[in-house]
Amino acid sequence: MERYDIAIIGTGPAGISAALTAKLRNKSIILLGSAELSPKLTKAHRIDNYPGLPQISGEDFARRLREQLSVMEIHVTEKQVSTVYAMGDYFALQAGEDMIESRTVIVASGVMQGKLLPGEEKYLGRGVSYCATCDARLYQGKTVAVIGSSAEAPREAEFLAEIVEKVLYFPVQGELPQERSNITVLHEKPAEILGDRSVTALRTDLGDHEVSCVFVLRDAVMPDKLVPGVETDGPHIRVGMDMETSIPGLFACGDIAGRPYQYVKAAGQGNVAALSAVRHLLGTAGHNVKEE
Amino acid sequence: MERYDIAIIGTGPAGISAALTAKLRNKSIILLGSAELSPKLTKAHRIDNYPGLPQISGEDFARRLREQLSVMEIHVTEKQVSTVYAMGDYFALQAGEDMIESRTVIVASGVMQGKLLPGEEKYLGRGVSYCATCDARLYQGKTVAVIGSSAEAPREAEFLAEIVEKVLYFPVQGELPQERSNITVLHEKPAEILGDRSVTALRTDLGDHEVSCVFVLRDAVMPDKLVPGVETDGPHIRVGMDMETSIPGLFACGDIAGRPYQYVKAAGQGNVAALSAVRHLLGTAGHNVKEE
Repeated sequence: MERYDIAIIGTGPAGISAALTAKLRNKSIILLGSAELSPKLTKAHRIDNYPGLPQISGEDFARRLREQLSVMEIHVTEKQVSTVYAMGDYFALQAGEDMIESRTVIVASGVMQGKLLPGEEKYLGRGVSYCATCDARLYQGKTVAVIGSSAEAPREAEFLAEIVEKVLYFPVQGELPQERSNITVLHEKPAEILGDRSVTALRTDLGDHEVSCVFVLRDAVMPDKLVPGVETDGPHIRVGMDMETSIPGLFACGDIAGRPYQYVKAAGQGNVAALSAVRHLLGTAGHNVKEE
Repeated sequence: MERYDIAIIGTGPAGISAALTAKLRNKSIILLGSAELSPKLTKAHRIDNYPGLPQISGEDFARRLREQLSVMEIHVTEKQVSTVYAMGDYFALQAGEDMIESRTVIVASGVMQGKLLPGEEKYLGRGVSYCATCDARLYQGKTVAVIGSSAEAPREAEFLAEIVEKVLYFPVQGELPQERSNITVLHEKPAEILGDRSVTALRTDLGDHEVSCVFVLRDAVMPDKLVPGVETDGPHIRVGMDMETSIPGLFACGDIAGRPYQYVKAAGQGNVAALSAVRHLLGTAGHNVKEE
């Protein structure tokens, strides 16, 4: 299996900035995310304080970033990383059924907005899932709930509907899935995940729905779920000035590395994270990385 | 005298980014630097890793930044700040003979490359000057040396030649001053500043030149000269994640805040510094600044 120098999780400004700088330093990289880039970015109405791009729309900004990735011959691998395991001198990234290996990792996956549902943490892995493509097959012939809080959620619900018996779709934000006989859209507010040994039902403001699994699909997950063992501060991964985390070789940048949630701050941190990863790869923490 | 909310020293990507964000937050700002922006930036051949601007030349980048300042109605005040004094609940900025007052300050003046000359620190203020416009009149009728290490140095030498008797110009980098009868360009390497109570001569690799003052004109100065009392680390001002320095209300960003010396890192830090200054002005350090 190819072991990359730097795996970058996330295709917002932080992840793309990290990828550009890592590629310029001739590192073998894998950039994991969406080829359409960050849905949150694409939908930004207007950005007024990104130096060099006066009054740009999120859509135009995303288009420019896609062009830049293309010019730099950086490919986006469209996979969702569910867990990053620190293996000692390398990392293993679980993405659906695939494992990806990399010597360093840059987490730029955005910050989870809002709170966990009651029961969500308790039943994670026992009927609560964050990844439809990873876990769909466990629920063949069953009824599942999808809490749609991400731009990708409608697509994931459609995919689920091809495999499971029935999908109850609870839209929190974004579009609805395409109409299908086995997808029911319910405009109810999810309140709690119920179960005994595993999930049995989703409770909403209007009642209980019997399901075998609740897929909670957000744009981002809690950092300690993504990287077990990393030091966190609420929804953020703790970083130092060089964007290093508590795990050597693991770096974080952008919204997941803390406030303010701003595009240019994210891009700046992505650059720093990439150079820190390059320095880590050199194995000489005190080495002066050549600047451009 | 008008007391600004935020004074920003420097017109590279860090200072401009800070100005854009501060202006968006409706603060009264003064942006001090060059209307042509950072000469180092303007001369960059090509920048490959600034997200959103693929393979842009420094000249084009600077042009875009100037346009953006214009769109946002941000004016550049062309003054060189020699010293920032912390006055308690505000700051006094010495710029030539003017004093500027501001409630907070963001230092984005770039990093001093290279080393001080032997004797430079010893005779600073006693025949060593960093500011021709500030100190020219002290040397009417005298011979002075100019060590030209900045893009502005030739213009400053020409200005000096209108006031002093004779200028010996030692070009370190950049262009030469225009020919004038009382400017002599000497292609010698400055080695030491000599004196007793004050400066008496500049020693070079080829000999000694009797002068009353040595004007050392670099793009940036040592941070502890610019801001007496601030905690430094070599040529850098020490900052935390929020770009705050050891002096409350004073922030630093860009190259002067440490490596890496990269455009997008500087721009990102400028944004963070501006939001931290806004928060400081609110007087509630724990307050959640509204994000966009």
